Amino acid sequence: MQDAQIFYDTLEVSLAVGPDIQDITPELSNLVRQTRIAYGVLCANAVGSTGSLTTIEFEPGVVADLKDAVDRWAPKRMTYAHELAWHDGNGHSHVQAALMGPSISIAIRDNRLRLGTWQQVVVINHDNRARRRPIEVTIVGTVKSN
Amino acid sequence: MQDAQIFYDTLEVSLAVGPDIQDITPELSNLVRQTRIAYGVLCANAVGSTGSLTTIEFEPGVVADLKDAVDRWAPKRMTYAHELAWHDGNGHSHVQAALMGPSISIAIRDNRLRLGTWQQVVVINHDNRARRRPIEVTIVGTVKSN
Amino acid sequence: MQDAQIFYDTLEVSLAVGPDIQDITPELSNLVRQTRIAYGVLCANAVGSTGSLTTIEFEPGVVADLKDAVDRWAPKRMTYAHELAWHDGNGHSHVQAALMGPSISIAIRDNRLRLGTWQQVVVINHDNRARRRPIEVTIVGTVKSN
Repeated sequence: MQDAQIFYDTLEVSLAVGPDIQDITPELSNLVRQTRIAYGVLCANAVGSTGSLTTIEFEPGVVADLKDAVDRWAPKRMTYAHELAWHDGNGHSHVQAALMGPSISIAIRDNRLRLGTWQQVVVINHDNRARRRPIEVTIVGTVKSN
Repeated sequence: MQDAQIFYDTLEVSLAVGPDIQDITPELSNLVRQTRIAYGVLCANAVGSTGSLTTIEFEPGVVADLKDAVDRWAPKRMTYAHELAWHDGNGHSHVQAALMGPSISIAIRDNRLRLGTWQQVVVINHDNRARRRPIEVTIVGTVKSN
Repeated sequence: MQDAQIFYDTLEVSLAVGPDIQDITPELSNLVRQTRIAYGVLCANAVGSTGSLTTIEFEPGVVADLKDAVDRWAPKRMTYAHELAWHDGNGHSHVQAALMGPSISIAIRDNRLRLGTWQQVVVINHDNRARRRPIEVTIVGTVKSN
């Protein structure tokens, strides 16, 4: 057991009209490397109520399948109470983002994110317009091992 | 990079028969302010297997839309194996809560939760009776900046 | 407020063809006890893009209901772009795991995981073959109370 240190930063990610899915693993891995944290955990959250974070195998097939699925779970072509009041056409975006969730946490081991070989951290834009989204990253860990 | 400090507390939230959705952002923001933590992360989890946490724009339209959606994803009027054994009528509640997930983590920046302007942290009661739910809050951070 | 300490370990969990759901609460509770951390938070993530973590009441009824539900949310018998490219028959597994999410965080209080009495942490294998999955566990906390 070691004393914990803390580090933080913000990523800015440009995303197309939703559902759009972007891989942020390279940027997160860079941050981890810079901190020199050997062991700990990275917590990240999407800022804004129509964005979400999860992990997938980031290849075109899974990206297409997940876009189809979020549209199936909360279809654009339904009546949403949010739209009746606000007329911004993104009722489905809010429901999709709440479902997927705004945050994840991934272990850091040997100064690297501990993901599977075919597992990447992705941000999803569910909004009906292109968005530049801040992703807040907080790293808690130690520079030495147990 | 700074040494990390830790703080914890419990919120008690009264919720109506599910799906009920309550905004706990004011309470969480108060806790953050009291800790004087400048930078770090807040982790929260709902205690009990029929509650969940996520973020939404907390306005009546989105609240209604999300209630409709969780009922669509795991409808009350289906046959659940849980109910055949336990006869408590809340099989759908368990499935909904497992889907939405018990926990979130949100960054703290400048002694404030780093959410979007129209993004609030909500607790959802999925149970078929009113519940008073403990939400456990753990804050890890530092009183100074990087 | 106390200085935070950090501890980490890996669980290896054997899971059958998905959807399979296993309770890892006893193993996590053992880790917490060993650290002697009184107050803090446990973060865990499933390594690999076809596994996920959540909490449920771990009894055969809910387990069966949640298996049914994930198969309903992303059915095996659909056409997935991932399978058209990779022919490994697990397109639904990727979509299910992204939906459920790879990570959770649970508070530690009095050297115990702060879950409900009928709430357990489970790992889900969504893959179409049996898998041995690493679960990375990071504990941040303090040996003394506030």
